[in-house]
Amino acid sequence: MDENWLPTLKTDTPQEGYELAVKLSRMSIKFMQPDADVRSAMRLMYEYDTQALISASQTIAEHFQTIAAANDYWK
Amino acid sequence: MDENWLPTLKTDTPQEGYELAVKLSRMSIKFMQPDADVRSAMRLMYEYDTQALISASQTIAEHFQTIAAANDYWK
Amino acid sequence: MDENWLPTLKTDTPQEGYELAVKLSRMSIKFMQPDADVRSAMRLMYEYDTQALISASQTIAEHFQTIAAANDYWK
Amino acid sequence: MDENWLPTLKTDTPQEGYELAVKLSRMSIKFMQPDADVRSAMRLMYEYDTQALISASQTIAEHFQTIAAANDYWK
Amino acid sequence: MDENWLPTLKTDTPQEGYELAVKLSRMSIKFMQPDADVRSAMRLMYEYDTQALISASQTIAEHFQTIAAANDYWK
Amino acid sequence: MDENWLPTLKTDTPQEGYELAVKLSRMSIKFMQPDADVRSAMRLMYEYDTQALISASQTIAEHFQTIAAANDYWK
Repeated sequence: MDENWLPTLKTDTPQEGYELAVKLSRMSIKFMQPDADVRSAMRLMYEYDTQALISASQTIAEHFQTIAAANDYWK
Repeated sequence: MDENWLPTLKTDTPQEGYELAVKLSRMSIKFMQPDADVRSAMRLMYEYDTQALISASQTIAEHFQTIAAANDYWK
Repeated sequence: MDENWLPTLKTDTPQEGYELAVKLSRMSIKFMQPDADVRSAMRLMYEYDTQALISASQTIAEHFQTIAAANDYWK
Repeated sequence: MDENWLPTLKTDTPQEGYELAVKLSRMSIKFMQPDADVRSAMRLMYEYDTQALISASQTIAEHFQTIAAANDYWK
Repeated sequence: MDENWLPTLKTDTPQEGYELAVKLSRMSIKFMQPDADVRSAMRLMYEYDTQALISASQTIAEHFQTIAAANDYWK
Repeated sequence: MDENWLPTLKTDTPQEGYELAVKLSRMSIKFMQPDADVRSAMRLMYEYDTQALISASQTIAEHFQTIAAANDYWK
């Protein structure tokens, strides 16, 4: 894990904010399952598991809400 | 994926905001499963899977909340 | 789908706001499963599926939160 | 269903607000499954179903958040 | 159930706020399953059920968000 | 459990805020399953359970939202 992987919640555009939300979602998995090989194996499975993908999309949506607020919705 | 698929969270109407929420929900799946053929196959399944549709509706609701706030609720 | 099904998030009363939240929840299913016959068949099933009903109630709650904020909580 | 079951989100105390959140959670089920006999049968089952109770508690928490904001947190 | 179990959302510290969130989460179960013996039996089971514990943690997180806002984040 | 494990929601950086969100997520499990040996056994299992990890990531996202707001998004 990079030592400094989340310096700020500010992004230039909504799209970069969305990408950051995806990253924050993935970091949770890293915190709970530090073994990269295990994570790769799990990813191979859940990429084909509709329910897992949809559940993960809820996490992304929650993080995007936070990041959007942090950027005053890029108004 | 379009290079610039989320230029803004602003929409003219609540309905367009809702449609954007559906798009944001779908983008999460694209990020996690980049293969369009696999996504098409999964969609064929989850379109008939009540629990999957309801879970996806939660993601849409979360994104709509963000977009509604970004548009000051179209007041 | 009506062409203009969400002109505003404003409602006169909290109860109408709640009814709109139910509508927004149902619209997600329409977006993902456009075939009305399939939706009717699914509804017949999930109306007797406790977990599905409870999951759907979470979506309604999320939309109601958005609508309540849009109406300044009908203060 | 009472004709006017949600006249306001204001309550005198946090506790009454919580009770209203429970009511809003239950109303979702009424909207989706209007048959009271079916609901009674379902309730007999889910009262002993841990996962269902916990899922329902998420809906209550979401509604309580809305109601608490509507009451300015009873400050 | 105590007659007056939620007099206020104010707490002196974030930690007490968190403990209140745990309490609010538990109260939902009480509302839906009033029989204490049944609840004890269910608890014996879900204490060893990872998915149930994680689902319950989502409810706690939602309540903690409400309580934190009610306390202006203990700033 | 430390006697004073949550003195404040303030952190110096978003990253420390995220780490606190992970901690808050874990504390819920401690509250519901106080036996450390049982928790260790459960962790061994859920670290390989994609759905459990994703559900836990939703809890982390919810707590991170609270902590981000408490820190005014580290603006």
